[in-house]
Amino acid sequence: MKAEYIAIGTELLIGHVVNTNAAYLSEELNAIGISTYYHVTVGDNHERIIDSLKLAASRSDIIICTGGLGPTSDDITHEVIADFAEAPLLENAQQKEIIKAKFLKTKRAIPENNFKQAMIPENSIIIPNPVGTAVGIILDYHYKVSETEIKSVKIITFPGVPCEMEAMFQATVKDYLADYLREQETVGAIVSEKIKFINIGESRMAELIGDEIFAGANPSVAPYATLGECYVRITSKAASEAEAYELMQPVKQQIEEKMQDYIYAYGDLTVPELLAAKLKENSLSIAFAESCTGGLLSKAMTDLPGASAYTKLNLVTYSNEAKVEILGVEEQSLDEFGAVSEEVAKEMALGLEKISKADINVSITGIAGPDGGSEDKPVGTIFIAINYREQLVSQQLDWYARTLSRAQVRELACLKTLYEVLKLLNSSNP
Amino acid sequence: MKAEYIAIGTELLIGHVVNTNAAYLSEELNAIGISTYYHVTVGDNHERIIDSLKLAASRSDIIICTGGLGPTSDDITHEVIADFAEAPLLENAQQKEIIKAKFLKTKRAIPENNFKQAMIPENSIIIPNPVGTAVGIILDYHYKVSETEIKSVKIITFPGVPCEMEAMFQATVKDYLADYLREQETVGAIVSEKIKFINIGESRMAELIGDEIFAGANPSVAPYATLGECYVRITSKAASEAEAYELMQPVKQQIEEKMQDYIYAYGDLTVPELLAAKLKENSLSIAFAESCTGGLLSKAMTDLPGASAYTKLNLVTYSNEAKVEILGVEEQSLDEFGAVSEEVAKEMALGLEKISKADINVSITGIAGPDGGSEDKPVGTIFIAINYREQLVSQQLDWYARTLSRAQVRELACLKTLYEVLKLLNSSNP
Repeated sequence: MKAEYIAIGTELLIGHVVNTNAAYLSEELNAIGISTYYHVTVGDNHERIIDSLKLAASRSDIIICTGGLGPTSDDITHEVIADFAEAPLLENAQQKEIIKAKFLKTKRAIPENNFKQAMIPENSIIIPNPVGTAVGIILDYHYKVSETEIKSVKIITFPGVPCEMEAMFQATVKDYLADYLREQETVGAIVSEKIKFINIGESRMAELIGDEIFAGANPSVAPYATLGECYVRITSKAASEAEAYELMQPVKQQIEEKMQDYIYAYGDLTVPELLAAKLKENSLSIAFAESCTGGLLSKAMTDLPGASAYTKLNLVTYSNEAKVEILGVEEQSLDEFGAVSEEVAKEMALGLEKISKADINVSITGIAGPDGGSEDKPVGTIFIAINYREQLVSQQLDWYARTLSRAQVRELACLKTLYEVLKLLNSSNP
Repeated sequence: MKAEYIAIGTELLIGHVVNTNAAYLSEELNAIGISTYYHVTVGDNHERIIDSLKLAASRSDIIICTGGLGPTSDDITHEVIADFAEAPLLENAQQKEIIKAKFLKTKRAIPENNFKQAMIPENSIIIPNPVGTAVGIILDYHYKVSETEIKSVKIITFPGVPCEMEAMFQATVKDYLADYLREQETVGAIVSEKIKFINIGESRMAELIGDEIFAGANPSVAPYATLGECYVRITSKAASEAEAYELMQPVKQQIEEKMQDYIYAYGDLTVPELLAAKLKENSLSIAFAESCTGGLLSKAMTDLPGASAYTKLNLVTYSNEAKVEILGVEEQSLDEFGAVSEEVAKEMALGLEKISKADINVSITGIAGPDGGSEDKPVGTIFIAINYREQLVSQQLDWYARTLSRAQVRELACLKTLYEVLKLLNSSNP
């Protein structure tokens, strides 16, 4: 069962929107055993959408479209599909009422063009939208491959707004497609596992693991890299889930042996999530005094639901004054070593404990750029200190020499700092 | 001059990476007058990459590929292009030396497979990579459309890592393509302007502006929406830049009249950037005491270079204790109104001034979810207070009823809070 994803919207082709739907849908489809072979993005143009649908129908079994379901004149997805599949648009009375009711609830006037969203290609199943007024459809499209053969292709549409698409996928489409696959009996079991590594580059990882492992077809092993981390995904297919897991084991063990120094997680858990779990498990609180990261550490740890279990107070002491007045850093240390120094990082972490009363007190000071660097302390020079129990550990963060943007320096510093805290907790059995 | 973008990488098709390169390249190409008509994503599969190149060559003049230039066995982009364009891979001695030198500098051992990155299709121009070891190429591919007609297509490759691709595009490819276009004399002048609106939904914006304006071809007007904001982009083409600007004016004025209550910016300036400029212009400092946003406001304002001009100290007072002990919020107010209340927001902003000594003191308290909501105060209930000069203004943030995630509630609260501060400063002529 091959899926193809078509994103519709000129805004994507002129680069004003990053398409996050492609990744979301591909991952969700993959998880229910549907492989996506192509992503295509096309503008709000009748002819080119038709061409893309035609090509997709010739090589795929399921076509998933996002975008072009809004009320404005360039939203033409259902109109084009109606044309392509010869399924004329019909006004859906129920949908019209739903649109009316939604606007009544928000006490806003109903823009007349919103009723366009009640025009649905004939014979479609409607995918309700729990969030907005744009509904999607599931439409079976049949065409003659030859005189004797008819091919059926499912066309599924979603709005382009990610939270609407996601809500609709989860509430309606996921189960629908899983049932459809079972009916077609095309899927055995597919299982897939991710092993995450830190403090190693992608090419070194590839060499350690070796070409032979990456060349395998079942299980297949694919390498990935993101800012500061890399990982592999092992995927295996078999008649049952248990068999698929068993099939995966030898390769998994080989990778674990070769990469033992770098493994930090299995699955999708992130460094902040692992640290949060560790803190909760041991009823520890944590506090940050940030300079160069300006709130990023605090944000990262409060992005997670339930952050109040370990977060009481965090400080962004951006100026020297704040470091002196709030954290009690010595003026003399600032003069002698500079604000970006291991000494100041230590004093920040010590001072933080007095005001936060947290169990773990973490400080960071550095040069995020693009300005402020010097020969001695170039952009990317960052010191951290961790004050935990009677220990005060400090270090300069190091990373591969790379041209990093301000945002990347800050992101990477945040990741590495949280990982250092996690390592310290893991090694000291809190 | 039509461009087509092909992203190569199975990781994109299984949804483990969000492709940000598509938006970046499309916007950059657009800015130099090259329209992108299609984005295609294809896996690390020889045959399907060939098919995608063939289709792209038939309908586009420039093919830009990203991904598949790494050292691992699934990185096959140059190999496939060599096949497709009949340009055999040759080892480039200079490139081999560069790879050696880069690894020497980082004092890491050179993984043997990295030398694969020195294998370059014949007759290619090399695009140096100032960041990593994967170089890109520019290759002219010629094919017979008919017995008498030969078509030339430029194939350009980049690594998939965004910072590498961006550095290579800016250092080499941008000027190369701009020169190429001038040679071909296919471009007059294209100018484009963006008008940004806040506190209005996309469909209401579309209705106010009207179908007639959106139906125009030159200038063309396209509507966009992101979380909490929407905007239009007006694009016009003419022989010269001045003429293109002139052509745009009548439509621009009509939009300005219809949308005057909602305009907050022209161009790409964001709310944090506008606020930062206002603060710098008036030598004002700002401080935040955050609860539900947990550092997001502080992060947003320190994402910008030069943030030290207005940032001295920010606090994340997540717990009630921190609100009482650090900000001096009354225990009684917490008991009577709850931590999420207008009263507590006010006390936070008043207390913050004493510790921050900043000119503007902003507080936020609310329920970001997914837990912690109640009938009275559902998820998304957020109060802010702004303490500026003798004024203390406070309000509950309001937004359309929507199913928002924790991350979205926090992002939107951050945007709206900063916008309220900007509005207050604009109205009080600081």
